Amino acid sequence: MPATTSVMRSEIDEQPQALRATLDALLPKSAEIAALAQQTRQVLFIARGTSDNAAVYGSYLIQAHAGRLANLASPSIATAYGARIDLSGVLAVAISQSGKTEEIVETLQWAADCGAKTVGITNGADSPMTRIADVALVTQAGTELAVPATKTFTAQLAAQAVLALGLGAGLDAAELERVPDVVEDMLGRNEEAIDAVVERLAGVHGTVVSGRGMAFSTALEAALKLKEACYLHAMGLSYADLLHGPMAVVDADTPAILIAANSGPTLAGTVALAERVRANGAPAYAIGGGSALADACDLSVPVPDLPEWLAPFSLIVPAQIITEKLARRLGYDPDSPRGLNKVTQTS
Amino acid sequence: MPATTSVMRSEIDEQPQALRATLDALLPKSAEIAALAQQTRQVLFIARGTSDNAAVYGSYLIQAHAGRLANLASPSIATAYGARIDLSGVLAVAISQSGKTEEIVETLQWAADCGAKTVGITNGADSPMTRIADVALVTQAGTELAVPATKTFTAQLAAQAVLALGLGAGLDAAELERVPDVVEDMLGRNEEAIDAVVERLAGVHGTVVSGRGMAFSTALEAALKLKEACYLHAMGLSYADLLHGPMAVVDADTPAILIAANSGPTLAGTVALAERVRANGAPAYAIGGGSALADACDLSVPVPDLPEWLAPFSLIVPAQIITEKLARRLGYDPDSPRGLNKVTQTS
Repeated sequence: MPATTSVMRSEIDEQPQALRATLDALLPKSAEIAALAQQTRQVLFIARGTSDNAAVYGSYLIQAHAGRLANLASPSIATAYGARIDLSGVLAVAISQSGKTEEIVETLQWAADCGAKTVGITNGADSPMTRIADVALVTQAGTELAVPATKTFTAQLAAQAVLALGLGAGLDAAELERVPDVVEDMLGRNEEAIDAVVERLAGVHGTVVSGRGMAFSTALEAALKLKEACYLHAMGLSYADLLHGPMAVVDADTPAILIAANSGPTLAGTVALAERVRANGAPAYAIGGGSALADACDLSVPVPDLPEWLAPFSLIVPAQIITEKLARRLGYDPDSPRGLNKVTQTS
Repeated sequence: MPATTSVMRSEIDEQPQALRATLDALLPKSAEIAALAQQTRQVLFIARGTSDNAAVYGSYLIQAHAGRLANLASPSIATAYGARIDLSGVLAVAISQSGKTEEIVETLQWAADCGAKTVGITNGADSPMTRIADVALVTQAGTELAVPATKTFTAQLAAQAVLALGLGAGLDAAELERVPDVVEDMLGRNEEAIDAVVERLAGVHGTVVSGRGMAFSTALEAALKLKEACYLHAMGLSYADLLHGPMAVVDADTPAILIAANSGPTLAGTVALAERVRANGAPAYAIGGGSALADACDLSVPVPDLPEWLAPFSLIVPAQIITEKLARRLGYDPDSPRGLNKVTQTS
């Protein structure tokens, strides 16, 4: 019989303190980041898996609010093709929970060799990544034992919010400092709404998870969590990509999970998407999106109000809890999915 | 009773002539591209859906062989957030079958307003995109009627190969000119191998489609096709991202389709991935990858030898045919998937 709780759930619940400790450690680094920023014009993220999903948040945040181009690198350009590209003017930002994933460390070193300035975001204080990076932003999530990353993911979001502020984003640091309290306050709430979604997902093989703008990162990470811990065929897609083809895949047995901040420029489109999903005969479940999205969906899990640029900190929490509960509901151990190790080595 | 053929299949079979006509029209444009290239240092693709998958090919090709950074834009940064980013030195390359998708046209105009030079790759000769772009690369695929794009996709690949040559890639244009004949020669071959894969896919809800480097684009496009025309839960993932979590999702009822060129730096990793998939108890089906990948998989569809940078032209063809046959096998009309129109409008 499955356990009634897990290490993963404990680590979900540790996120307020992980966020507080990370912000305390990293906010003082903004002058150091600003100095690097002066030597660069754009950002290139280097990451895989959960860290890659975190980087999607950083890329939207920096482009929307710090006025710089910010894209995701393809590590195989460095590791498989050994390409030489002029990266002067580029701030390469590698993200890795352990700081040890060889492919990511090798790609960061490649970027430096190509002329980039470098930042490493990692929970591994004394790791190869911190030794290579010009500036190391070490997250303070504490040791993470469950294979599905949770508190290290939100700590990576926090490090990137600090990065965006250092790059001159016109955003209020005081709002960021409120996030740990807001996340703390939401834990333990809405368990009934979450359980209702879990119960529906327990009866399907697959789901589409969609979000746009700042919430796209959350959609990708929610889909990854559901794949790795629940073995659900979870397809993470942007709002627009969903309309370009995969909309055909939703049906009565393939619901959509739609994720949006409670306000902001992508909310109306997400509400319209929910209406279209239901018009196609598929159920739609909301995470966030306020009453507008809740009213357009079959089930919904609310999140507290945060400015749109910080909404991903709260939006991912229900997705993590849904994943943990669904894994146990299906008889799986969320802490140790089949076929995975905590530190992934790819080359 | 489902039809024994479809418009989609006719359009798959028209690819040799679409490629020939496109190369004839676009290869003479390389001087024009080179002139634009001198004013820029990097490439930013703007696309959605199938065109986005095509752009992934361009980004690998240009980075691996033309020594320039080449990334994919997030259109919502322009259309939803209205961000202002300095794009001087950027060559913005928009890709759209119709040339009319408002989100893409709007984002290309935004890039120009931000200082980028612009290229438009489209099959729509007299479209808003050709009027905006500094250089229009109009593909010559002819009218495409089936909703799932096939010949316009490979024509987009051809336009990007021409683009890479214009950007100074150290590649042989004569090899590119051989591609239409090679694709022509493969059509109608290996139908038994294809039918065997179709039969297995008819019995599952989902599949993981994976490829790396140049073949990553093919994996994403194959997954999109299977989602849109067969309503299969097809998850397109890079080799490395698959190892970071989603490897847990493959099982006896969730096979992996692994795609690789017959040679090149990512083949060995794809063979190792096939072995790992099968060690996890899941079937693996190969498209390409020569005898090494075929030997490591349960079923395989061979493709003719092409240099690795051109392999995506041949690798997608079996995936298109599998999609078309599987749709009919399941009783669906491949030409008109539910919930989709030919020109997708997102805003």
